[in-house]
Amino acid sequence: MLHAVIMAGGAGTRFWPASRTARPKQLLDLVGGRTMIQATVDRLGDLVPAERILVVTNQQLVAPIAEQLPGLPVENILGEPCKRDTAPCVGLAAGILARHDPAATMIVLPADHVITTDEQFQEAIRQAANLVDDRPGRIVTFGIRPTYAAEGFGYIERGDKLTPPPAAGVSPPADTYHVKKFREKPKGATAKEFFESGRFYWNSGIFVWRASTILTALDTHEPIMAGHLQVIAKAFGTSDFASTFTREFTALPGKSIDYAVMEHHSDVAVIEAPFRWDDVGSWQALARSLPSDEDGNTIIGRHLGIRSTGCIVRTDQQHLVATLGLRDTIVVHTPDATLVANKHDEEAVRQVVEMLVQRGWTEYL
Amino acid sequence: MLHAVIMAGGAGTRFWPASRTARPKQLLDLVGGRTMIQATVDRLGDLVPAERILVVTNQQLVAPIAEQLPGLPVENILGEPCKRDTAPCVGLAAGILARHDPAATMIVLPADHVITTDEQFQEAIRQAANLVDDRPGRIVTFGIRPTYAAEGFGYIERGDKLTPPPAAGVSPPADTYHVKKFREKPKGATAKEFFESGRFYWNSGIFVWRASTILTALDTHEPIMAGHLQVIAKAFGTSDFASTFTREFTALPGKSIDYAVMEHHSDVAVIEAPFRWDDVGSWQALARSLPSDEDGNTIIGRHLGIRSTGCIVRTDQQHLVATLGLRDTIVVHTPDATLVANKHDEEAVRQVVEMLVQRGWTEYL
Repeated sequence: MLHAVIMAGGAGTRFWPASRTARPKQLLDLVGGRTMIQATVDRLGDLVPAERILVVTNQQLVAPIAEQLPGLPVENILGEPCKRDTAPCVGLAAGILARHDPAATMIVLPADHVITTDEQFQEAIRQAANLVDDRPGRIVTFGIRPTYAAEGFGYIERGDKLTPPPAAGVSPPADTYHVKKFREKPKGATAKEFFESGRFYWNSGIFVWRASTILTALDTHEPIMAGHLQVIAKAFGTSDFASTFTREFTALPGKSIDYAVMEHHSDVAVIEAPFRWDDVGSWQALARSLPSDEDGNTIIGRHLGIRSTGCIVRTDQQHLVATLGLRDTIVVHTPDATLVANKHDEEAVRQVVEMLVQRGWTEYL
Repeated sequence: MLHAVIMAGGAGTRFWPASRTARPKQLLDLVGGRTMIQATVDRLGDLVPAERILVVTNQQLVAPIAEQLPGLPVENILGEPCKRDTAPCVGLAAGILARHDPAATMIVLPADHVITTDEQFQEAIRQAANLVDDRPGRIVTFGIRPTYAAEGFGYIERGDKLTPPPAAGVSPPADTYHVKKFREKPKGATAKEFFESGRFYWNSGIFVWRASTILTALDTHEPIMAGHLQVIAKAFGTSDFASTFTREFTALPGKSIDYAVMEHHSDVAVIEAPFRWDDVGSWQALARSLPSDEDGNTIIGRHLGIRSTGCIVRTDQQHLVATLGLRDTIVVHTPDATLVANKHDEEAVRQVVEMLVQRGWTEYL
């Protein structure tokens, strides 16, 4: 059966001051209507019912996520007691799913990406699940065709074309390839080379695989981690779960799923994503997902602009932001903190957060 | 006896959103500690006791001014029912003072200027009062030596030097001249010519004269206005005052004191102000009165800056403003509205206020 594992542990400091430790990006309504994690669940449609969705986050976010996803059984929201990167997160979810459904197929999804349309996404997931059904040891990923030489994404280098068998009730498969190699975020010339070669995709962070595939891979390559995870998964649903989770998870080594599993795995396929995808990693990225006015400003909330162009303004519904003679400036107003940033300097929003920590101004984190 | 008349009717739209219709510049604490009108009263020191200070403002501001100046008899705060420029304001004050003290000497002071030091100011007022005592029909003004070719001030053209007689208990007089002509705000080349000639002062808006001088002048040049004002002054202190004030003041013609009196008066002297003066007509002007950090930023409130230079930031005590890669930008945060403006475009703050009116967003005015 198809299960979804939503990874919702991100800190989202790049959206400060809209995003905070207690309310990071995935809990925000950045593009209108629903929060990003709500949209992530909605996007699954009928593909996966609520009881087969697991959310993995940190302990602090369990309660607000439960509030935003009232349809989800609250025990399906797992709060990690500490940061241990992606492999333990994925491995734990696999262990929990496999105990009740040994043939479980997992969709791993970040909670904070913008994807459209839902239909294209669901169709693509069905195709990936078919590829896994076809060869149960296979890992399927989604690659995004790069639109520029981005330095902020990992890349997937594709190999030969893979011709999946046709499956009943599913559209003919999109472009699918064997994966030659996963590549870390590249710098300048390398990014340019990747982009221009036409053989590289951005790594979307969306995977489809059997839970058993991950468990076997971790047993082989990360036996210590796997041992701890097994103990936690076994306690799931019992009264000991919380204390076991904390004790064992804290004790295990942190590692990314890329290093722990992907690099060793021989049968990995990449589907060129047929849906529109954006990880909205910055205010500028967000602006690309929203309409802009005739002066090229993207406005969320009450704004009055005079001779202002290329700005991104976000404010609470009632708080007015007036801009005067501004160019390429980001203004984000929240009740207790306001950011005013040069658009070309946006990367440094992280530095603001670091300085807040340094100064002990934790009330703004 | 020496009396002070503080003119406190200004709207101060240039300090929006810190200044509002209900709390204009003169009621704000812009430079720290006391509000501008409080500082104006403080500045008089022992020169004029509270009961001899009159404040002329608009009706809406009577209550907040009374709150800020608890030492002042509340009946000394006159709330004009409508705008009629400066001549009726000054003439009414003169009429009220003259009824109890026919030989009253009035100091006319704007409520929203920054002047230092108090001692130099008081000494200068004493010298001016001596010049008036010496020739009771004389009008004495203070001129500010221009530091640039300002277009935003009226100018005073000086004539021959005036050598006042020495007076007991007062320092030797500062540079004093006969006034040749009052000049309106000049444009470009004219402003430059005024500045370079060395014969022009900025008009500080501070005057010293006998109440009787103004009353006589208005009787002569503005008999209709004078008639209405006399009726109002006569009602001062009676139960009819409020209704009389509204009826008569609304009926009289508006005119500036410059046009109504100054232009016709032959005996006008200008003292080169020995005190530091600033009308703080803009955020940039305000910044000149405040210290700046090593990056040339002027900060009032909680701020965190990264690669930000030449900025002016003002925020409430607890609201944090973070600036990132900003240059020459003004950020003013208030609970319900925030302005972000290019420093070189500051003049247009008035346009923001106009647009608020146009859009009917009166809650921000």
